[in-house]
Amino acid sequence: MANVYTGVIGYGYWGPNIVRNFFNTPDCIVQFVADARPERLAALNKVFPSVKGVRDADDIINNKDIDAVIIATPVFSHFALAKRALLQGKHVMIEKPMTSSVAEADELINLATQKGLTLMVDHTFLYTGAVQKMKELITTEVIGTPRYFDSTRINLGLFQPDVNVLWDLAPHDISILTFLINDLPVSINATGISHTRNNIENIAYMTVNYDSDFIAHFNCSWTSPVKVRQTLIGGDKKMIVYNDLEPSEKVRVYDTGYHHHTDEDKTKIMVDYRTGDVYLPKLSSHEALSGVAKDFIQSIINKKDPVANALLGKKVVQILEASQESIKNNGREAKIK
Amino acid sequence: MANVYTGVIGYGYWGPNIVRNFFNTPDCIVQFVADARPERLAALNKVFPSVKGVRDADDIINNKDIDAVIIATPVFSHFALAKRALLQGKHVMIEKPMTSSVAEADELINLATQKGLTLMVDHTFLYTGAVQKMKELITTEVIGTPRYFDSTRINLGLFQPDVNVLWDLAPHDISILTFLINDLPVSINATGISHTRNNIENIAYMTVNYDSDFIAHFNCSWTSPVKVRQTLIGGDKKMIVYNDLEPSEKVRVYDTGYHHHTDEDKTKIMVDYRTGDVYLPKLSSHEALSGVAKDFIQSIINKKDPVANALLGKKVVQILEASQESIKNNGREAKIK
Amino acid sequence: MANVYTGVIGYGYWGPNIVRNFFNTPDCIVQFVADARPERLAALNKVFPSVKGVRDADDIINNKDIDAVIIATPVFSHFALAKRALLQGKHVMIEKPMTSSVAEADELINLATQKGLTLMVDHTFLYTGAVQKMKELITTEVIGTPRYFDSTRINLGLFQPDVNVLWDLAPHDISILTFLINDLPVSINATGISHTRNNIENIAYMTVNYDSDFIAHFNCSWTSPVKVRQTLIGGDKKMIVYNDLEPSEKVRVYDTGYHHHTDEDKTKIMVDYRTGDVYLPKLSSHEALSGVAKDFIQSIINKKDPVANALLGKKVVQILEASQESIKNNGREAKIK
Amino acid sequence: MANVYTGVIGYGYWGPNIVRNFFNTPDCIVQFVADARPERLAALNKVFPSVKGVRDADDIINNKDIDAVIIATPVFSHFALAKRALLQGKHVMIEKPMTSSVAEADELINLATQKGLTLMVDHTFLYTGAVQKMKELITTEVIGTPRYFDSTRINLGLFQPDVNVLWDLAPHDISILTFLINDLPVSINATGISHTRNNIENIAYMTVNYDSDFIAHFNCSWTSPVKVRQTLIGGDKKMIVYNDLEPSEKVRVYDTGYHHHTDEDKTKIMVDYRTGDVYLPKLSSHEALSGVAKDFIQSIINKKDPVANALLGKKVVQILEASQESIKNNGREAKIK
Repeated sequence: MANVYTGVIGYGYWGPNIVRNFFNTPDCIVQFVADARPERLAALNKVFPSVKGVRDADDIINNKDIDAVIIATPVFSHFALAKRALLQGKHVMIEKPMTSSVAEADELINLATQKGLTLMVDHTFLYTGAVQKMKELITTEVIGTPRYFDSTRINLGLFQPDVNVLWDLAPHDISILTFLINDLPVSINATGISHTRNNIENIAYMTVNYDSDFIAHFNCSWTSPVKVRQTLIGGDKKMIVYNDLEPSEKVRVYDTGYHHHTDEDKTKIMVDYRTGDVYLPKLSSHEALSGVAKDFIQSIINKKDPVANALLGKKVVQILEASQESIKNNGREAKIK
Repeated sequence: MANVYTGVIGYGYWGPNIVRNFFNTPDCIVQFVADARPERLAALNKVFPSVKGVRDADDIINNKDIDAVIIATPVFSHFALAKRALLQGKHVMIEKPMTSSVAEADELINLATQKGLTLMVDHTFLYTGAVQKMKELITTEVIGTPRYFDSTRINLGLFQPDVNVLWDLAPHDISILTFLINDLPVSINATGISHTRNNIENIAYMTVNYDSDFIAHFNCSWTSPVKVRQTLIGGDKKMIVYNDLEPSEKVRVYDTGYHHHTDEDKTKIMVDYRTGDVYLPKLSSHEALSGVAKDFIQSIINKKDPVANALLGKKVVQILEASQESIKNNGREAKIK
Repeated sequence: MANVYTGVIGYGYWGPNIVRNFFNTPDCIVQFVADARPERLAALNKVFPSVKGVRDADDIINNKDIDAVIIATPVFSHFALAKRALLQGKHVMIEKPMTSSVAEADELINLATQKGLTLMVDHTFLYTGAVQKMKELITTEVIGTPRYFDSTRINLGLFQPDVNVLWDLAPHDISILTFLINDLPVSINATGISHTRNNIENIAYMTVNYDSDFIAHFNCSWTSPVKVRQTLIGGDKKMIVYNDLEPSEKVRVYDTGYHHHTDEDKTKIMVDYRTGDVYLPKLSSHEALSGVAKDFIQSIINKKDPVANALLGKKVVQILEASQESIKNNGREAKIK
Repeated sequence: MANVYTGVIGYGYWGPNIVRNFFNTPDCIVQFVADARPERLAALNKVFPSVKGVRDADDIINNKDIDAVIIATPVFSHFALAKRALLQGKHVMIEKPMTSSVAEADELINLATQKGLTLMVDHTFLYTGAVQKMKELITTEVIGTPRYFDSTRINLGLFQPDVNVLWDLAPHDISILTFLINDLPVSINATGISHTRNNIENIAYMTVNYDSDFIAHFNCSWTSPVKVRQTLIGGDKKMIVYNDLEPSEKVRVYDTGYHHHTDEDKTKIMVDYRTGDVYLPKLSSHEALSGVAKDFIQSIINKKDPVANALLGKKVVQILEASQESIKNNGREAKIK
């Protein structure tokens, strides 16, 4: 395959970044962008005069010359568009979160498998230097056995009209959790509050439970006066503080740990603490989305599995779907199906 | 009443601070300290040669000359000691949390009421300049209607052998919540994990639910590589970030807000945002515990209700007790009784 | 005057920002950009196909249709280009610093005055929300009488081959000083060190002396492991900390002060201290360079004096020139001519 | 020698810390404290009833049983007291700065040498975990050849009535410079301003020049709204940022560097940059003053040279004395004698 001819559906907030990065990706030709809004197509034309703007997504999906489709539309439309594109034999990358339900994700995965097509989700954060470094620190067992993952992603943000704050903000951190931690989550507890009359939570908290003694927690808000993007990852050897707002020193590795003596007497615990050096590894500073674009195109060409593959994308939806169930049942534990 | 003759039961980690502050409080004479450990009494004698050390708490409780007893022992012993002291007609201040159960708290409150004795809990934080300033900002409606309270109190801390991390760390922040917010909590969701074999949680998360659209959340851990003591308090007019680790700039008031249009169409939300100046009020820098001591002694003398009164102390225990129920039921909502 | 037809000379690091901002400025048409390097003109053409690239600056300077010329070349070439442009009757904006010497600045000012042309220097920082706010705080006497200005501008930066670190980094802060403080500096002390063999200082320190009891100090380095952009401005009523690296909270106003009693006995000083609230005003977040462009174009049209006028630009050069003299005389005081 | 019998002259701000630390130092008996102020002796008696307070310093100096004298009085009195004590055969530790002049320091050093007595200066910072770690990083050549030392020590501080801000604040950092860097300074440039009528500078800047391409700079102020205690130390391999206000992460080691190609053509410089990991070593957290006390006592007993020896103390005075000369000559370079 010489070049992957690509069309992008949706040219909203994130669209220009997608077009720019795929535009600069080797072996990729961005031919079309679809958006129903004329002013968005005009904006496209100003910056990328060589890319043809169309009003109807199906002009891309049904175009014989197109190999791959990128879906950058609101969540509720992901499934229908991706399904039509797969049925037309297109490779597909979907914006996060992949779909509105696990059932939809399953159907897309089955379809892509049957047809031998690449199906990927744009979990951009997996391609950042920070997450790549943390993956390395966990894979090489520098951190030891992971014990907890505690994420805070809050700011004064745009209230979404159709999805709550977990569906909006948590996919970033859930994808990082899923990427870094091999353990499988078994259930979710979620609570939250809506300060608008549409009952869509603008503040929400979520605990992810495992059969092991690992635990994950997420704190998401659109109504914080300060912006926080911080995750703590504790291992039994070392601990990480990941602050995405730091310009370069995003990852701090603490030589901090504790372990308890396996005493005969179960009622007594003796916990030893250790604190030591802190280490701030230099991180690759490439643009994450260029890594996404390259991975998608090369996965198509080389028939390999991308890092942000559909299975990972589905696992993110599993957690979100269970959080929805729990939050509507006053925080009652919701099993992950 | 000329002087309040006082005895302190328990001379552990916090004991020397208590003795020092009551020692320097007008109208108060610290006569006795009880501790079963000879080395603790030796330590007492070195710093406060004028205070008599005794081995047995009952030597204080049964002493006719003693007016007031301060109980600074582990939680499980609070109730029995306080009950005996009240029965002997002593005014009582108990270390936080007040008791191990709401039933115990109720019994002590009833006893104190019957006998006309002062019963107080050492919720020291209520006497800090920061909390006093936040109370003022809320009382004077600078903040507007409170919408959320989000507290993080994590560090690499001593694992307690008998109580979980919520009972150990959260009482500080629950007392602040209870002091600042007039709304009554109705239920609790709590989750957590134990990394020791005694099943005592060293990481725990708690949501406090209200009938209004107010929500509170607590994140507590003994196993964080970094120390965080931060609370966000959002009102519909302004928002507060309270960082207790800042040497002097602990309270930041953000002229940040949002409100949604009360549109006819419930499915559409239009939220307006506002960001403005930030203001860091100067805080009183007196030692909080000296305020505690003064309030206890003056409440006895003037027969008034202290700020950290027994009812507030009981409300803290109500939340802790419900959190215990929820955490043992996998996060299921536990009603506050 | 309908539109100001404008040419930009030099399309290096800063050139694209200049073209973009003037491009979007009302009443301004960017017609030409001159750069001797073909690859820079190719870069121009890609982004601004409507702007004509030329190799020779004189194609702009001698063009009858051009009203205004922006000179964005290395410092040593500013004078000759600006002089030719003024002689051709063009309004001129020069990148900072204005010229290599005070004599050159004087000659340009005289020429512009004779010919009634606008002559401006691109001291971009004067148009930032932060500096505008500080100007307001000083003009309205919130700060009181200014006492000191202490600036640190250090990072791991590109060593310039022709000018030392003061000429490279200090113009920003000297222009802010000159803009904010009405007092006239009388002399300079400067010291520094060169870690390269060309004797161009990569670290330098400068004190600016006044006849009053005001003092200014500058710390500049290309060889710091951390980036710092911080200025302290002390008044006798309040003090400002201006941290340009803060995303939004760049200006902090401290209600901090001190004053000494005017005691009869000169040998005794009694100094009173005051610390109070801190206040972080909301700042305008427009792009500063768009303000520069608008000011230049409107000054031409309305025959008014721009904020970053040539006299201010000359004052910056006066300080730089004197710093050069001092640094080469081992820090000896150099009078400002 | 069994025990070193010690007397402390001066029980002001720092006195209680000195007495407490020497009190707890092995092989040391604190017998006397002299202070002319009865209320200071009363304060002493309350905390250290076993130490005898006297009004007259000579009661200590002339006491046959006293082996060692610690002088913690204002600077101007150091020389006379230390001289009398040395003449009486006492070992002497003097508070920093050692003396008011180099001549005085020389006389004390000669006297101590003749009589075989230990003479030490209380440069406490040399005994901190942070400075010890930096010494190790420099000695083991982790940092490479040092290139610069840039210190800022500013806060809203007590104006001293007799010495300027350099004599008050800079001795800490000058002692660290002297301890860490083996190069000998050759001259000083200093500038400053007095905002009081006694012409004692409350803001001052100082450059220390060397024959090598090393440079040091000090920025000291009693009139800053914020407290800063930060030093940058650049080597040609790595760079250190030392922030004394950080609770534990005081030392940050940056794998940052630059070097210039030794090109034939002197006018061209090619500078290579490197940025890498950052490393925050764990620091010993013992109290520095206990290290001072132990070093003094053990130097006496073992007739060894203490870390903060008199020669280092004299070098600090040399720099201060030259700074005085420079500042009074409008910043003119002052040679170090």
